[in-house]
Amino acid sequence: MSNQKTSSAVLVESPLQTYRFAHRMSRIGVSAVREILKVTERPEIISFAGGLPAPELFPIEALAEGHATVFRESGSAALQYSTTEGWLPLREWIADRLKNRRSINTSAEQILITSGSQQGIDLVAKTFLEAGDKVLVENPCYLAALQAFSAYEADFVAVDSDDHGMCVEQVEAAIQREQPKLIYIVADFHNPKGTTLSLERRQQLIDISRRYHIPIVEDNPYGALRYRGERMPVLASLDEEGLVIYLSTFSKTLSPGMRIGWIAAAKEIIQMLVVAKQATDLHTNTVAQRAAAKTLETFDYDAHLARLCEVYGERCLTMIDAIGRHFPEETKWTRPEGGLFLWVELPEGLSGAELLPVALEERVAFVPGAPFFAANPKPNFIRLNFSNSKPERIEEGIARLGRVIKAHIR
Amino acid sequence: MSNQKTSSAVLVESPLQTYRFAHRMSRIGVSAVREILKVTERPEIISFAGGLPAPELFPIEALAEGHATVFRESGSAALQYSTTEGWLPLREWIADRLKNRRSINTSAEQILITSGSQQGIDLVAKTFLEAGDKVLVENPCYLAALQAFSAYEADFVAVDSDDHGMCVEQVEAAIQREQPKLIYIVADFHNPKGTTLSLERRQQLIDISRRYHIPIVEDNPYGALRYRGERMPVLASLDEEGLVIYLSTFSKTLSPGMRIGWIAAAKEIIQMLVVAKQATDLHTNTVAQRAAAKTLETFDYDAHLARLCEVYGERCLTMIDAIGRHFPEETKWTRPEGGLFLWVELPEGLSGAELLPVALEERVAFVPGAPFFAANPKPNFIRLNFSNSKPERIEEGIARLGRVIKAHIR
Repeated sequence: MSNQKTSSAVLVESPLQTYRFAHRMSRIGVSAVREILKVTERPEIISFAGGLPAPELFPIEALAEGHATVFRESGSAALQYSTTEGWLPLREWIADRLKNRRSINTSAEQILITSGSQQGIDLVAKTFLEAGDKVLVENPCYLAALQAFSAYEADFVAVDSDDHGMCVEQVEAAIQREQPKLIYIVADFHNPKGTTLSLERRQQLIDISRRYHIPIVEDNPYGALRYRGERMPVLASLDEEGLVIYLSTFSKTLSPGMRIGWIAAAKEIIQMLVVAKQATDLHTNTVAQRAAAKTLETFDYDAHLARLCEVYGERCLTMIDAIGRHFPEETKWTRPEGGLFLWVELPEGLSGAELLPVALEERVAFVPGAPFFAANPKPNFIRLNFSNSKPERIEEGIARLGRVIKAHIR
Repeated sequence: MSNQKTSSAVLVESPLQTYRFAHRMSRIGVSAVREILKVTERPEIISFAGGLPAPELFPIEALAEGHATVFRESGSAALQYSTTEGWLPLREWIADRLKNRRSINTSAEQILITSGSQQGIDLVAKTFLEAGDKVLVENPCYLAALQAFSAYEADFVAVDSDDHGMCVEQVEAAIQREQPKLIYIVADFHNPKGTTLSLERRQQLIDISRRYHIPIVEDNPYGALRYRGERMPVLASLDEEGLVIYLSTFSKTLSPGMRIGWIAAAKEIIQMLVVAKQATDLHTNTVAQRAAAKTLETFDYDAHLARLCEVYGERCLTMIDAIGRHFPEETKWTRPEGGLFLWVELPEGLSGAELLPVALEERVAFVPGAPFFAANPKPNFIRLNFSNSKPERIEEGIARLGRVIKAHIR
């Protein structure tokens, strides 16, 4: 088993034999986050490690009723094979919402339903990337995006980020030097950093994309979860050239377990993504798609989002406040306006990875930051999730973590 | 739109611009079957084109109740993120069944839940294949498997097949000549042919796999649907070296729309497939997995399979009998013992593709055989599905098709 965990292991030797796996498998690696999550499932541990929404806020009854109605009204159609593009009424609902709430110039035929936003990344990678092609990313970057792109043997062009997101002023030189095929970005409430790309940088990035004709993959799973500050236009709404491929999902708002995400993009791109999805898994679960669409006919989605924002916003502030009181002075941290995470820079010399086992002994968990770096990993960062813990647990967990950090400085 | 349909189109020019898609996209191509299915949805057409199970046999109430129970008993867990491997009770049910009914030496930790059997093929391809690696297949072959492997830029080594499945006596020479990385086979009730691999050939193939150390991907979506003849051991049950990767699904027995399939393989292979799936779509819909497991706790699955076999067996015989009466004497066809399809060789000089528009005018549809060939496509074959039409519709549809064929011979 341990051979699987070294990132260079492609040949796996078992007592019986050796399997010849593809080279790409050595690039993906086992997710450090995933391995950590297994440990943190013990109930006595206060975990800031996962990226989980709060299960007590899932609209269980509405979704149960949505499923029941689908079985009652159209059971045999819902259980049958369906189109790769996805359930049309759901695509129409999504297109309407993107038009009305996000000012994206789109329509149902420009929407592909995916098995979560993660599959959106996979399909874009499959459709665009040759081995050795480069993807421009912010550093640090959403870990599972790095893994999805790595599965197609992409290389990364990493540009820095600061409190206002990707340092877009570095992008043009990076493009000239490295000629990336795609730009990947989480502009709203970044994972792992929690930062938001400034309006000026959004306009600059769209301008660069247009001038160099490089598609932008705008991954926006958290966009509906803004707790403070002014809403920014999504990159897709600024794009007039069909160069932004917009990914989103119900995972953070309705349910991650249902695995329903979507891609909104130019028709030509959607048509190619449909071909890729057909070869990958034919289509996304039809019962779930129809149940989501049916639920949204009567469920007050906006009131639900407002409730999520109220609860998560409080948890976010609680964590920011507790960090200020419990962490040593030399610590820095982001102050997210939305999303699920904040990002902590520990005092120089500390290592998130080395701190984790000690923290687990103190019954508090987090994710070390190093695996999120596409280049030049720094050991003294950690990612903290606030959506999945109630305020009193956040206060207690941050106090524990503060003691662990302080004990290590001395 | 039309550029998407030529198999060499990678550069797609839109009015606004050109996108640079990956070369692999030109290999996948748009499924001819899928394009045909769009036409055949008109109710006046008797369609033998799709591979659809009979919707009137879906256990709608049992599955509705399974879903309702999951929401009632464990809604918040079912709606949350879950493990990539899949819902443990479902993996245990599958492992038990593979042990008891298929004599496969397996356990829950050797099972990975996939989004349909199609994703099983995709993940195996992702895990094993470099660009230019070769996959040994029977000719003709399941079309969407060719597409899934092509997405990883695999090449094919095509060996012939006859009424007893893959001509295994050709395999050893093909391996020595071409050194394929994998062998892909549908041994039970082949798609498109409906044939079953003989016992002797199964043993020979396992022996060859062992001696040359080449994994076999045994794709078995139809295995539970045997209507006549003696049950054959699956290849996975004959394998003692961890070299058979066994794929199956609930798509043909419970519901294709739910997208639940599985892979049973050696632990080392499953661990690598889990890494690949994590980067691809994190995990399969948890509500659906739990609902399937919950349903199977009380639903009489064996009685359901017996009923499917009774109905489909009758439809299969009806079609065989009708072909004998309505098709011209020079026609040949397979006589499947199970599955969903039979395969018709039209008289020399006829072309399934050319016949299709005429057949559609006569309100009957089928799939031309040529796209199923991995090499040397032959025009004078067609695939007929019998599971999705009632006997009287089969009789009428085959009569219509017989008239179309006869008119073309003269």
